[in-house]
Amino acid sequence: MERKRIAIVGVGLIGGSLAIQLNEKGLASKLIGVDSNRDHQKKALELGLVDEIMELDEATSNTDVIVLAIPVDAIIKLLPSILDKVDKQIVIDLGSTKEQLINVSKDHQRRGRLVASHPMWGTEYSGPQAAVHGAFENTAAIICNANDSDADALEWTKNMFRKIGMHLLEMDAVAHDLHVAYVSHISHITSFALANTVLEKEREEDAIFELASAGFASTVRLAKSNPAMWVPIFMQNRENVLDVLNEHISQLRKFKSCLEKENYEYLKELIEGANKIKRIIK
Amino acid sequence: MERKRIAIVGVGLIGGSLAIQLNEKGLASKLIGVDSNRDHQKKALELGLVDEIMELDEATSNTDVIVLAIPVDAIIKLLPSILDKVDKQIVIDLGSTKEQLINVSKDHQRRGRLVASHPMWGTEYSGPQAAVHGAFENTAAIICNANDSDADALEWTKNMFRKIGMHLLEMDAVAHDLHVAYVSHISHITSFALANTVLEKEREEDAIFELASAGFASTVRLAKSNPAMWVPIFMQNRENVLDVLNEHISQLRKFKSCLEKENYEYLKELIEGANKIKRIIK
Repeated sequence: MERKRIAIVGVGLIGGSLAIQLNEKGLASKLIGVDSNRDHQKKALELGLVDEIMELDEATSNTDVIVLAIPVDAIIKLLPSILDKVDKQIVIDLGSTKEQLINVSKDHQRRGRLVASHPMWGTEYSGPQAAVHGAFENTAAIICNANDSDADALEWTKNMFRKIGMHLLEMDAVAHDLHVAYVSHISHITSFALANTVLEKEREEDAIFELASAGFASTVRLAKSNPAMWVPIFMQNRENVLDVLNEHISQLRKFKSCLEKENYEYLKELIEGANKIKRIIK
Repeated sequence: MERKRIAIVGVGLIGGSLAIQLNEKGLASKLIGVDSNRDHQKKALELGLVDEIMELDEATSNTDVIVLAIPVDAIIKLLPSILDKVDKQIVIDLGSTKEQLINVSKDHQRRGRLVASHPMWGTEYSGPQAAVHGAFENTAAIICNANDSDADALEWTKNMFRKIGMHLLEMDAVAHDLHVAYVSHISHITSFALANTVLEKEREEDAIFELASAGFASTVRLAKSNPAMWVPIFMQNRENVLDVLNEHISQLRKFKSCLEKENYEYLKELIEGANKIKRIIK
């Protein structure tokens, strides 16, 4: 696989972790970092995530591949002007929502240069210092509306994801946004709300700290996630997230009703139903 | 520390994992397993978790320490008759709720032989085959109403928990049940309800399987937990769990309201509030 000059726009958790993988798998002849945050620029250089920092326009004209690893609202804002400037370059976005992205790009004359993708990897941390080795391995990379991408761009992007250890799925953007509402977005809302519940009611923080079990830590882990990333995701996937959130609240009400009515047979059934997740999550 | 003959009543996840630790730390001269489930008896012997299987009465009269690692409803049921039969033995219960336990034992003439404890450790699996090495290490063991235990029983139990790597906390049973509603019980309800949400709405199980991220797996992990353990916990801690569940539903409604009204400033504030859990959970 030919090494390319690659610009990473947004050298935070996702962009930084991808930079490490691109380096280690020998996919980049040069890695250019682009970031609006000066501290992140500096930190990305210090950590050796990228070789050089450039402004977006300069990076766009001096690289072969432009990877967008910024919040989804920033992707929507920057994408049209990036596509205006590209010629043979490949533009890969890594955003967690896809329908609006497809809508703003579908009529662009350079639409073919864009590969709309979503690697199902992340942690609850953010910024260049959150970048880790071995990220993305053994997880899925979803490519949306792949037929609208040029063959060469699609091919290179798929190979890149494979080389960093991912398996590929193709999906329509509308279906993608619905599925991720279930398997990713609702988990974050649940976790944020659980953290707020405990912080609101349990004023004795020392007690939480001393008693918190591994189970609690696991359920509340995602509550550390960055609002700058998540607010735009919820905005763009508002309708799907609302549907799933309504269902989740009604599922919680069933537990509440069992406890109120002391209907422990039904409570057992609800838990047995939930246990079926074993079939799906190992 | 003097080795003792120890009976483990309930050789499942908790009892089996404790048996492994007692063996490895040289705390037991003999380990007797008691279990109403024949398959578990057999499996516990096969796995070498215990040296011998006995009936409860026989084990009670032939050991120095009786550890109750059974569901909390079974503890309440068996405890009075066990206390009726003990003389100098130490009885340690490991249940996740404490107020009812204290109530059924407080006027017993052998109350002093009981050490009411709750090691804050567990996994979402159950049965002897779920027992693991290194369990309990670096987690808290709570002892409730310690003043009502005889000095020798309390001393030996504390040393046992320390030897298996735990740190000790003492707490009143009423306070215990309130705190664990926040830091353990609500996490399980959230996780059960999240599993049911996804299983209910997302009929394409393949999509969940392919797409499920580490974040989702982490949030839904506890949904695999055993109803035989959890229904009795929720029954015994019903009022506290209902309070926390009501608060949790109202916290989720705030997220819903933000999305419905497209109030993204407030959504950001809610997430920033949740981020404060960082102070508490590393």
